[in-house]
Amino acid sequence: MKKEKDGTNAASLALHQKLKGKIRIVPATPIRNRKDLSLIYTPGVGAVAKLLAAKPNEAKKHTMKGRSVLVVSDGSAVLGLGNIGPYGALPVMEGKAALFKRFADIDAVPIVLDTQDADEVVETICHIAPAFGGINMEDIAAPRCFDIERRVAERLDIPVMHDDQHGTAIVVLAGLTNALTVAGKKLAKADIVIAGAGAAGTAIAILLRDAGAKRITITDTKGIINAGRTDLSPHKSELASFTNPGKKTGGLRDALSGADAFIGVSGPGTATAEDIKAMASKAIVFALANPVPEIMPDEAKRGGAYVIATGRSDFPNQLNNSLVFPGIFRGALDRNVKKITQKMKLDAAKNLAATVPKPKREKIVPDMFDRKVMLTVAKAIR
Amino acid sequence: MKKEKDGTNAASLALHQKLKGKIRIVPATPIRNRKDLSLIYTPGVGAVAKLLAAKPNEAKKHTMKGRSVLVVSDGSAVLGLGNIGPYGALPVMEGKAALFKRFADIDAVPIVLDTQDADEVVETICHIAPAFGGINMEDIAAPRCFDIERRVAERLDIPVMHDDQHGTAIVVLAGLTNALTVAGKKLAKADIVIAGAGAAGTAIAILLRDAGAKRITITDTKGIINAGRTDLSPHKSELASFTNPGKKTGGLRDALSGADAFIGVSGPGTATAEDIKAMASKAIVFALANPVPEIMPDEAKRGGAYVIATGRSDFPNQLNNSLVFPGIFRGALDRNVKKITQKMKLDAAKNLAATVPKPKREKIVPDMFDRKVMLTVAKAIR
Repeated sequence: MKKEKDGTNAASLALHQKLKGKIRIVPATPIRNRKDLSLIYTPGVGAVAKLLAAKPNEAKKHTMKGRSVLVVSDGSAVLGLGNIGPYGALPVMEGKAALFKRFADIDAVPIVLDTQDADEVVETICHIAPAFGGINMEDIAAPRCFDIERRVAERLDIPVMHDDQHGTAIVVLAGLTNALTVAGKKLAKADIVIAGAGAAGTAIAILLRDAGAKRITITDTKGIINAGRTDLSPHKSELASFTNPGKKTGGLRDALSGADAFIGVSGPGTATAEDIKAMASKAIVFALANPVPEIMPDEAKRGGAYVIATGRSDFPNQLNNSLVFPGIFRGALDRNVKKITQKMKLDAAKNLAATVPKPKREKIVPDMFDRKVMLTVAKAIR
Repeated sequence: MKKEKDGTNAASLALHQKLKGKIRIVPATPIRNRKDLSLIYTPGVGAVAKLLAAKPNEAKKHTMKGRSVLVVSDGSAVLGLGNIGPYGALPVMEGKAALFKRFADIDAVPIVLDTQDADEVVETICHIAPAFGGINMEDIAAPRCFDIERRVAERLDIPVMHDDQHGTAIVVLAGLTNALTVAGKKLAKADIVIAGAGAAGTAIAILLRDAGAKRITITDTKGIINAGRTDLSPHKSELASFTNPGKKTGGLRDALSGADAFIGVSGPGTATAEDIKAMASKAIVFALANPVPEIMPDEAKRGGAYVIATGRSDFPNQLNNSLVFPGIFRGALDRNVKKITQKMKLDAAKNLAATVPKPKREKIVPDMFDRKVMLTVAKAIR
């Protein structure tokens, strides 16, 4: 493992080895004696078991189902690292479970799957769902993730959200709303380029459209997505139908020429300072690939970027899903919401943006340690 | 819900409703600021993810896999309540997870399945296995459980144990060893009747045989299992091949006539004081169905029983799996054991029995709150 200059990687590896798992699963009540045992286990638990056998709908009132979310990945698109499998995904899911508790008092169970077959992923998630009040799907590659999320959501009567799509889209919309304010521009007129047409890029394009953006261009590894391309998968054809109003062709540089905002959800190092120089003045650069962004903040600055954001905790303007997913599931659990709708996502982004009443270049989103953040996002889920 | 005389059921229901889940999932380390976040989440976690993608075998050193056990049930044979489904099973699995932490510092994840199809149960457990260092299967009905346990154990390289079979068998062997000492009898000569040829009864018969018992008779709902019966399923035919040396026929009363020990793992109220009276002097009665035993201790006493045990925490001699499963998995995790063998189970029973050097009628097994119990069972798993 290459050592980073600031030692974060080495420190993280050492911490993981010390902790052996970033969560602990502890009794919710002391177990001191046989009396305690008779209440939480046999014979007392028999009464609860019988009650729930007769009335499964009461499970939320008597079990973890009322407080718990499943955090599940097949390891097919982990951070910006790609298809690294279940063991590579596990520390990320554990971290997410720790954040669920820290920011929303939700008991989240990290599960990684040893299969990447879409049918098996759907079946497995549905089969283990009874203990949970919500399903947070994570780091599942496009285009499989669209189908998997839709099918799981149809089968279950609890909220299901692929966070890489919708958590990212919500935080990007909130961040872009405030960044445009800082730059003195309007969403409806802004020229917005999204690099990456995977899970995140697709959901961002759709949510920005639904929020009123009219000039979105999206690129994949082969260049600008446009209706003339013959290699488009179904979800990319769908993207082509409402993006690229300028009918541009070519690569990322062509797309960025004169653009107001760049939203990178692709992979490390896809953009250079020269690319940023081609953008309009007061350019907005969101380089969100994790752990290594599309362009490092100092290089984006060299290219003239006016507002810069990443997904990392070690730079200003951390556009991280952690601002969103705790509140989404807190709201869903509290109000017994069965589906996360597009309206809820737009409201969540609006509420999140509003937590920074006077956005600045280095402050377009709030600090995730500000408890108001979780509470205001939760309010949108109703 | 019928109220018990002592109020345990009502108190348990109230506690469950107050707690909403008997476990909490908490961060293993404080998350105070962005620096902490950068170590447990992005960007630092990326280094761990990359390491484990390249070396999955290191997962036990860096993730919950080194500390975690899956507690999984399909709800098909919960306590003595039968097939009450996943929601009925959930509070029991949560309780078990709480005990895993309390007695062995193991982080156990309760999962209940919405399927009882054997193939789907096997596939689901195997697909979610990567995060775990062991699989504790629970409350799965016979005969499906035998096949499911074997197939899951064959597929995975972590220990797999259906606790209703093996945990129960180990604690019964330990308890019987000491009860026979109290009664001045020998295992090899004792006439032992097992009521119930399900998961527990079958595993008990096999473990007692392997420990040296020669005179075992086993009954199911149709009476004594004997080679002459034409209605036997494969696992019952197997039982018939090494049990019932007296070639008895008839019902439970016929089996118990002159018997030294009665081991009930069937269901509530299958035996009466009259049945116990038919046994030999200094009769041993283990009435282990939960929450309501085959015969209540006071009635067994009326029938003349000399040593009486149940599975409940509110009577003396609690022959509960909680004496066994924490140590089994603690030992397996600590020594990286990949299979729980028959030899380990015999050693575990021996070690457990030895924790009570001078057994008495009302003290044949130790108190599960005695930490020595877990440690001595763990020592057998090597």
